[in-house]
Amino acid sequence: MEELKASAANSSPLTPIGFLDRAATVYADTPSVIYNAVTSTWSHTRRRCLQLASALSSLKISRGDVVSVLAPNIPATYELHFAIPFAGAIINILNTRVNARTLSAVLRHAESKLLFVDIASRDVVLEALSLFPENNPHRPILILIEDDEVEPLTPSSTVDFEDTYEGLISKGDPNFKWLYPNSEWDPLRLNYTSGTTSSSPQGVVHSHRGTYVMTVDSLMDWAVQKQPVFLWTVKMFHANGWCFPWGIAAVGGTNICVRNFDAPSVFSLITRHRVTHMCASPVLLSMLANENKPLENPVHILTAGAPPPPAVIQRTESLGFIVSHGYGLTETGGVVVSCAWKGKWNHFPAEERARLKARQGVRTLLTAEVEVVTSAGESVKHDGVTLGEIVIRGSCVMLGYLKDPERTRNRLKNGYFYTGDVGVIHEDGYLEIKDRLSDIITSGGKIISSVEVESLLYMHPAVNEVAVVARPDEYCGQTPCAFVSLKEGMVVTEEEIIEHCKKKMATYMVPKTVAFREELPKSSTGKIKKTVLRQTAKEMGSITYQNLNNCSIES
Amino acid sequence: MEELKASAANSSPLTPIGFLDRAATVYADTPSVIYNAVTSTWSHTRRRCLQLASALSSLKISRGDVVSVLAPNIPATYELHFAIPFAGAIINILNTRVNARTLSAVLRHAESKLLFVDIASRDVVLEALSLFPENNPHRPILILIEDDEVEPLTPSSTVDFEDTYEGLISKGDPNFKWLYPNSEWDPLRLNYTSGTTSSSPQGVVHSHRGTYVMTVDSLMDWAVQKQPVFLWTVKMFHANGWCFPWGIAAVGGTNICVRNFDAPSVFSLITRHRVTHMCASPVLLSMLANENKPLENPVHILTAGAPPPPAVIQRTESLGFIVSHGYGLTETGGVVVSCAWKGKWNHFPAEERARLKARQGVRTLLTAEVEVVTSAGESVKHDGVTLGEIVIRGSCVMLGYLKDPERTRNRLKNGYFYTGDVGVIHEDGYLEIKDRLSDIITSGGKIISSVEVESLLYMHPAVNEVAVVARPDEYCGQTPCAFVSLKEGMVVTEEEIIEHCKKKMATYMVPKTVAFREELPKSSTGKIKKTVLRQTAKEMGSITYQNLNNCSIES
Repeated sequence: MEELKASAANSSPLTPIGFLDRAATVYADTPSVIYNAVTSTWSHTRRRCLQLASALSSLKISRGDVVSVLAPNIPATYELHFAIPFAGAIINILNTRVNARTLSAVLRHAESKLLFVDIASRDVVLEALSLFPENNPHRPILILIEDDEVEPLTPSSTVDFEDTYEGLISKGDPNFKWLYPNSEWDPLRLNYTSGTTSSSPQGVVHSHRGTYVMTVDSLMDWAVQKQPVFLWTVKMFHANGWCFPWGIAAVGGTNICVRNFDAPSVFSLITRHRVTHMCASPVLLSMLANENKPLENPVHILTAGAPPPPAVIQRTESLGFIVSHGYGLTETGGVVVSCAWKGKWNHFPAEERARLKARQGVRTLLTAEVEVVTSAGESVKHDGVTLGEIVIRGSCVMLGYLKDPERTRNRLKNGYFYTGDVGVIHEDGYLEIKDRLSDIITSGGKIISSVEVESLLYMHPAVNEVAVVARPDEYCGQTPCAFVSLKEGMVVTEEEIIEHCKKKMATYMVPKTVAFREELPKSSTGKIKKTVLRQTAKEMGSITYQNLNNCSIES
Repeated sequence: MEELKASAANSSPLTPIGFLDRAATVYADTPSVIYNAVTSTWSHTRRRCLQLASALSSLKISRGDVVSVLAPNIPATYELHFAIPFAGAIINILNTRVNARTLSAVLRHAESKLLFVDIASRDVVLEALSLFPENNPHRPILILIEDDEVEPLTPSSTVDFEDTYEGLISKGDPNFKWLYPNSEWDPLRLNYTSGTTSSSPQGVVHSHRGTYVMTVDSLMDWAVQKQPVFLWTVKMFHANGWCFPWGIAAVGGTNICVRNFDAPSVFSLITRHRVTHMCASPVLLSMLANENKPLENPVHILTAGAPPPPAVIQRTESLGFIVSHGYGLTETGGVVVSCAWKGKWNHFPAEERARLKARQGVRTLLTAEVEVVTSAGESVKHDGVTLGEIVIRGSCVMLGYLKDPERTRNRLKNGYFYTGDVGVIHEDGYLEIKDRLSDIITSGGKIISSVEVESLLYMHPAVNEVAVVARPDEYCGQTPCAFVSLKEGMVVTEEEIIEHCKKKMATYMVPKTVAFREELPKSSTGKIKKTVLRQTAKEMGSITYQNLNNCSIES
């Protein structure tokens, strides 16, 4: 038995980029990418990707080089998920919402050899490059992505660009032989985390193998059938759209690309293209729910990125969306825990169903292990109460952080990736996130999950968005402080919110402070910036107590 | 970028056996295995498998040991797909139809440490062991699998058995920690090929990794949704039932086990259990088609193992089966090529649809490469005419043949697995098998695919089964010789068959000999034994020519 080992016949590196070849054969003349009035087919998309890869090779892009893309969810961004690795390079999709300073830091950190620039991002890119030190050897070649939807540049404004996207394609060879990775552990993608918790660029690197497993896993877990119609509402710069650029090629689906969208346009795109699948952050879910337009046909919607409030799930489902709920981080490359639904739950009342669905759930099929561990590294009891840090093991876990061995060591240790998220495991084995480690509030010796308080606050009919953070307290150490934005036209007082809380939660969890805001501060990916709110709460200082009893008294 | 490598957090060995853990959480109290009147649930099945694995460990079964199973598709065979590897051992399911001599040779070749014996196979096992040389150190421990469906043994007949299957389970620890493979390249399963072409045992070994990829691939390719009801008509001893023991756990389906079946019982099982999925050899497909019972609900049926005649596909589909057609070998561990269906083909007439569906198709999503190559190793033109050998590369390819480095070298070379099957690639990239290399007929310098002649012969309404082989010929070298069995009650002459052929095929392909048989000789897996028929044709000697014109004349 011992002489039987891996050989060239059975050890082809696992990679998702070859899915495009198969799509071009099986789904040849069916729609691959639709954007406004333009529809591509799978054979056409493959041809364009090969031409692009060929042109990149001509520009001396080769194995291991980082090629960056600053563009929204347009067809070019989709195609580059294949074209860049076809040339052997590492794909790095950048957040279109960052400022020049951050962009400059990221480009230098990534040492990007080439940058594809959406026409709408031209100015920020030039500003970012102007912040490079003189004669920086890492200055990337610039390629301009034009778009009929955006006004063209004047000829003098294009002088900084080596070529245009379509120019490159027209120069490329459609018979280019794409470069198979030498090893499945070779890096395929570099993603900068949205940085709600840190200021220096955090570049997360995933291998071909990891991305392959994650791509297949997501399709299996969500039970995506062949030839879905996928609406691109999750940003491709957000962990490569949770791997769905490769996944939709795997199942020969149709990608509906959009530059910008809001809730009404999502509903009209769903109708126009008969959308079957889409992904959404809880924020988008909330926007859709508030739009309150029942669907003609059911749409599968996968929500992840933050714990969705049960009330939002319930409202979205009432419109005809079939909500699946998952959990993942940039470091896991996609969704690795999901709330696998049980048939018997269908008989429960809607509110109970939503509560169950708001739990993050169980490891997806191809994720090896998910545990919740104490600071001593021991698994917590499956009691739904004992808090611990969520740790994950499996092919989906990143290789590490680029040029940051210390952070890599801190997060990949004891054979696990330490997520920094705090959760519990229920008796039935389902995981529920309670908070970020950094967002936990400790009040009078009691541990309060900010997320738990938030989700009970969301049950108030006037609440649009809410974030609960720790406010320093001279007696209790910390107290919960709620920042709340209200739905349009709604009026409610601080006292009414607190009354609502008292009915829903234990006294020690009730926010002692309720601060109303027009809008809560958000990161470029739509996450509420708790760091900012925490700072605000800190500046408030302690509550002034008139009648001190204990840490559960009201201010 | 170079310092980012595989680590313990992201390099968990890929294995399908952990799918059972997840099933026990997600599908806990839903049916896992049904056999006659007994239904298990997923949490119960997992518990039993852990107990079994624990009991195997107590019997000193450990990493790398081969544990064999001689049993039909009963629940024990299903459970052992997890229990044996849970103990670190290699699972080897044996063909229940082989004789004592072959069984003896296989058990000695495999060096099985332990053999699970279905009660109905008790005698053949004892006879096989009696053929072992005296004091053979490889004599396996015997465990008896009892079954309410089969008369129990007398107490004196059980003396050779160490224990019973249920006895082992009752002794095992349900909290046993199953053994994760040390490496994903560790062997998981050993399968002996049905041996239509060779006399010595050919033990094909697959790794955990290969089986994992194959399992997931088959689910994806066939688009098996969650919680299917799977009828066990494909033998688990046939490449582990094309990996569906692990696959059905992955999707939390229900396994309908059956000891024996015929076409009528298949139809009644479909109705009773609301079967959604089943696999079938073309022989079973043909049996079902002849039964001619329309289904109440559609059933997905995956056929593989030999090229199915288009006429059989057409008849099966007319009953309400949704036929998928795939291609694989024991050496690929499951289906690696499948006839991915195109929507536009739905508009074609039924006969044309069946013809398209009879093509083997394209590589499945997770198979890296499928090529058809000339003897010089060059890819053939995609013209549907140029013959070549089918070669395959990908994770699904075996590690090699046990104790047979020469055969391993002959079949795994140039980075591919050489299948020994001859095929063409059509213009649309779809593969079609034309024959086994050894079944090709060369007549008057022309190459004739026996399969092609057979599939045209199947169009004759009286033909039940047919096999075409080479008959030696003094002028032409070889001529096609057809062995035919007729449908019950049908009468037809040799001349009528030849007339039918002349209308359907080129003159040089028309069989010069038609020999009727009550039944064609078959291997234990239901494949027609062409080696036997070729021998018969050889003994016929050359046709006697009365009027010699050329090699296309009739005898």
